[in-house]
Amino acid sequence: MSIEILETFPNPNPERDYVIVHSFPEFTSVCPKTGLPDFATIEMHYVPDQTCIELKSLKYYYVSFRNQGIFFEAITNRLLNEFVEVCSPRWMRVVAKFNNRGGITSEIIAETGPKPEYLP
Amino acid sequence: MSIEILETFPNPNPERDYVIVHSFPEFTSVCPKTGLPDFATIEMHYVPDQTCIELKSLKYYYVSFRNQGIFFEAITNRLLNEFVEVCSPRWMRVVAKFNNRGGITSEIIAETGPKPEYLP
Amino acid sequence: MSIEILETFPNPNPERDYVIVHSFPEFTSVCPKTGLPDFATIEMHYVPDQTCIELKSLKYYYVSFRNQGIFFEAITNRLLNEFVEVCSPRWMRVVAKFNNRGGITSEIIAETGPKPEYLP
Amino acid sequence: MSIEILETFPNPNPERDYVIVHSFPEFTSVCPKTGLPDFATIEMHYVPDQTCIELKSLKYYYVSFRNQGIFFEAITNRLLNEFVEVCSPRWMRVVAKFNNRGGITSEIIAETGPKPEYLP
Amino acid sequence: MSIEILETFPNPNPERDYVIVHSFPEFTSVCPKTGLPDFATIEMHYVPDQTCIELKSLKYYYVSFRNQGIFFEAITNRLLNEFVEVCSPRWMRVVAKFNNRGGITSEIIAETGPKPEYLP
Amino acid sequence: MSIEILETFPNPNPERDYVIVHSFPEFTSVCPKTGLPDFATIEMHYVPDQTCIELKSLKYYYVSFRNQGIFFEAITNRLLNEFVEVCSPRWMRVVAKFNNRGGITSEIIAETGPKPEYLP
Amino acid sequence: MSIEILETFPNPNPERDYVIVHSFPEFTSVCPKTGLPDFATIEMHYVPDQTCIELKSLKYYYVSFRNQGIFFEAITNRLLNEFVEVCSPRWMRVVAKFNNRGGITSEIIAETGPKPEYLP
Amino acid sequence: MSIEILETFPNPNPERDYVIVHSFPEFTSVCPKTGLPDFATIEMHYVPDQTCIELKSLKYYYVSFRNQGIFFEAITNRLLNEFVEVCSPRWMRVVAKFNNRGGITSEIIAETGPKPEYLP
Amino acid sequence: MSIEILETFPNPNPERDYVIVHSFPEFTSVCPKTGLPDFATIEMHYVPDQTCIELKSLKYYYVSFRNQGIFFEAITNRLLNEFVEVCSPRWMRVVAKFNNRGGITSEIIAETGPKPEYLP
Amino acid sequence: MSIEILETFPNPNPERDYVIVHSFPEFTSVCPKTGLPDFATIEMHYVPDQTCIELKSLKYYYVSFRNQGIFFEAITNRLLNEFVEVCSPRWMRVVAKFNNRGGITSEIIAETGPKPEYLP
Repeated sequence: MSIEILETFPNPNPERDYVIVHSFPEFTSVCPKTGLPDFATIEMHYVPDQTCIELKSLKYYYVSFRNQGIFFEAITNRLLNEFVEVCSPRWMRVVAKFNNRGGITSEIIAETGPKPEYLP
Repeated sequence: MSIEILETFPNPNPERDYVIVHSFPEFTSVCPKTGLPDFATIEMHYVPDQTCIELKSLKYYYVSFRNQGIFFEAITNRLLNEFVEVCSPRWMRVVAKFNNRGGITSEIIAETGPKPEYLP
Repeated sequence: MSIEILETFPNPNPERDYVIVHSFPEFTSVCPKTGLPDFATIEMHYVPDQTCIELKSLKYYYVSFRNQGIFFEAITNRLLNEFVEVCSPRWMRVVAKFNNRGGITSEIIAETGPKPEYLP
Repeated sequence: MSIEILETFPNPNPERDYVIVHSFPEFTSVCPKTGLPDFATIEMHYVPDQTCIELKSLKYYYVSFRNQGIFFEAITNRLLNEFVEVCSPRWMRVVAKFNNRGGITSEIIAETGPKPEYLP
Repeated sequence: MSIEILETFPNPNPERDYVIVHSFPEFTSVCPKTGLPDFATIEMHYVPDQTCIELKSLKYYYVSFRNQGIFFEAITNRLLNEFVEVCSPRWMRVVAKFNNRGGITSEIIAETGPKPEYLP
Repeated sequence: MSIEILETFPNPNPERDYVIVHSFPEFTSVCPKTGLPDFATIEMHYVPDQTCIELKSLKYYYVSFRNQGIFFEAITNRLLNEFVEVCSPRWMRVVAKFNNRGGITSEIIAETGPKPEYLP
Repeated sequence: MSIEILETFPNPNPERDYVIVHSFPEFTSVCPKTGLPDFATIEMHYVPDQTCIELKSLKYYYVSFRNQGIFFEAITNRLLNEFVEVCSPRWMRVVAKFNNRGGITSEIIAETGPKPEYLP
Repeated sequence: MSIEILETFPNPNPERDYVIVHSFPEFTSVCPKTGLPDFATIEMHYVPDQTCIELKSLKYYYVSFRNQGIFFEAITNRLLNEFVEVCSPRWMRVVAKFNNRGGITSEIIAETGPKPEYLP
Repeated sequence: MSIEILETFPNPNPERDYVIVHSFPEFTSVCPKTGLPDFATIEMHYVPDQTCIELKSLKYYYVSFRNQGIFFEAITNRLLNEFVEVCSPRWMRVVAKFNNRGGITSEIIAETGPKPEYLP
Repeated sequence: MSIEILETFPNPNPERDYVIVHSFPEFTSVCPKTGLPDFATIEMHYVPDQTCIELKSLKYYYVSFRNQGIFFEAITNRLLNEFVEVCSPRWMRVVAKFNNRGGITSEIIAETGPKPEYLP
């Protein structure tokens, strides 16, 4: 399962609520309907609790979607669910910005809950 | 009727309030007064409830306006009304950005109600 | 009087609070002090009540300032007052962005009152 | 004294709270430490009360700093203090954006108090 | 210790809450895992209390990280901690924007607490 | 026939070789294969001989393609041929830049002959 | 006549072929057909011979077109002819970039002859 | 073999030398050394002789590289060779712009011969 | 004299014709007519012969113009003449891009002779 | 010696003259005069003969300059000399774009000889 690829390391500053954003402009998967590739930029925003997501494993995790057939809405929610499962953040948001398909570009935004007002 | 073109599919994650944005820069209709074409970029923002709007049918729905005579303000409100009728979202906003006409560019924004504060 | 140039038409969707923005980058008038031309982009943002401002008449209205001598602050407030007089909107803001004069660019923003929080 | 250069004129619309922004990208003074010139863009944002700052005198006022030795933090606060002294605005903010010095760009923002929530 | 490089000077206007932002696009350190260099733009935002951070010493402080092995999350928090130790600001935020590594760009944001609502 | 829409007027300065460029970002026709609309920006560059193409008629001429089924390569060559037939220019080039179709954007460039070296 | 507004001064370095470019983004005249204003950016490129065109008089010369009715092609050629009459340059080019009219933007380029190959 | 995917259609205007450019920003293949995906924008420029490359088949041809292991230099030359084999153009150039790998972006340009001087 | 500020160092690779470009966006002098400051970006392009211009002295040389009254055309030619006098380059070009004055931006380009065709 | 880090591989298409461009925006070395770091973007353009430069070794080669003291002009020429020594290209150009130092940005361009006219 692709979630097993993700590794974590201990948050070096758990005493503070700080925000981490990782952006990956080379996400690609396959449309289950047409079999054609989809492309997206994925942004992950989170406030770590006890663990942070390790960057190199995150890259391999994203790459594991390359030949999977999955829809836009499902990708975004699945990424959020699996990231949360792996690192139990205090708060997390996933933003997926999909390339033009049939002249339409799409952006899907899912989060664990409203962004706390005290965050930057 | 053009609204019949729109198809939906079940929201894969109805347990979560998440936001979907579809942008279409190739919207065109006809000015009822002059008979000349109008051009716009249409952005649809929504929080799905039980159903999501299917992307390919959305494209065909937009294309069905190509030879209709309709004013800017009416287009924007009609799009919002028909999208709501088809997918009953928890919240929806339509933004229509019209190209320069006589040196003036116009943007019209309609929504089902104020954007809930807890949304991203 | 230039205000008589402005025409309106019935708001097609008065049951909803929606926002209309018209931007005109070719506004020009004359500086009363130097006699030299001034240039500005004028943005009008409003929530229509029973009537909307007609686009072609708006263009002719703006053009009628071409040879009038009037200061930046006065232009912006006068535009707001006259637009309000003509269409009695639920809320309106005028933003005037003046080109570089003597190395300084200026922007003046006037509105009928604070933008209601429930507006997009 | 450079403040005497600044002229004002009566606010044509004191019955309304509106915002004026003047931006000047050619501000230059001298670093008291190195004797080398500093460059900045100065933005002045304010809500006039009974008087507005006259644009041409503002330019000459800025030019009067050309050979003065003064530090970044002091410039920004002094500009705010002197503008307030001259026109007693309802609210004012000064933003000074300094060019790269030693690889670092700096921005300093001072205001008479929090921006009132009802302002645009 | 690199913190000893940082110098301060008395805040010329401690009677006012104003914001200082210093941006440094040439920060570089070394990845402890791979030994390869990392690059970032560091933004420091703060409201000075009795002292301000001196610009030239700030540059030398940043340069002192050039051959240190340190992770993204740790850099950002350490910068914040050391800046606070040196100048005891009323409020401070550090934003570190790291260049593409393995196709992923990262941004980390830490602050002493929520930004006070009355600040610009 | 759409070519009959084009009007000309006498070149006011036939004694000089000068270049005219008209750009139209709202060209749209229909793909003969899929029935879906295509969109392009059309640039016409020419050196007039005895007649120039009249701007308003050019707009109506472009609009006349709105519901015609025609391929990219054929559009570009037909535009060139018809413009030449109507105004017999000393030299002409047509550049058609088509929007993304299936992820591919296309640009097609046809001209009456190599651009003379003495032209700007 | 508007050409009498233009002033010249002696070329300080007639022993060298060097290029001067003046760009004016606020040119406006009136369309003789519709009576509506046209807007353009005018670029003048030239190699001075014995005299240079004085900048302030150039501005007043451009402003003198404000209420003249004249077509795009005629403006460009007339500007070139009058500049040449006034300063007899070694070489000159005028580029006029007109704003969107009916969805079409136009650029017209006239020159005294091919740009000499040895010029920068 | 992937070349068999490419289809052609008769050049509608073989009597003229005109240029076709197709740009595809979603090209992806696999690095034979690391097994990680590579991403590129591919531009194909050509002057058709008797046949043109069909756009939809071109898309499928590009997609067929998705899981092939191939180096940057080899991709570019192979694309050129296969396009030439399929449509025997009068002239062709392939430009491949590869995304950042290890901090380095690469661009490779191959063509059938120097671009003829008479082409636009 | 300001030219005495300029220092040189021996060209490390005089056996090769290579190009050096130094750009300085903070050039300022004074208009002899109005006494107001002028601002420009100065680009110096050259092929060194036996000596190169030293960077720090170049900065001080530019700063020495701060309070000199001198016209645009004269500045550009004087810079070229003095740079040539100091380092006797194989070829040199000076480009001066002046900020908006009265709505007009100016660019002046002078060189020692046509750029040799074999240079990059 | 840093040149020993560079590896090559056989040119897969030596029968064709094609161009390879590698851009590296993270080059850094040390100024021998001040001991402070310099930053540059290095572009290498070449036509391979029998061997190509391997990308990963190129990255390590660039990184090896991190703590070397070397001047701008010398860096550029040394890079060109060492690349040529390692891969004996048919033609090569090195472009080094250095960050702002004291307000001046510099670009240095060296090549093995004029770019052959038949290259793209």
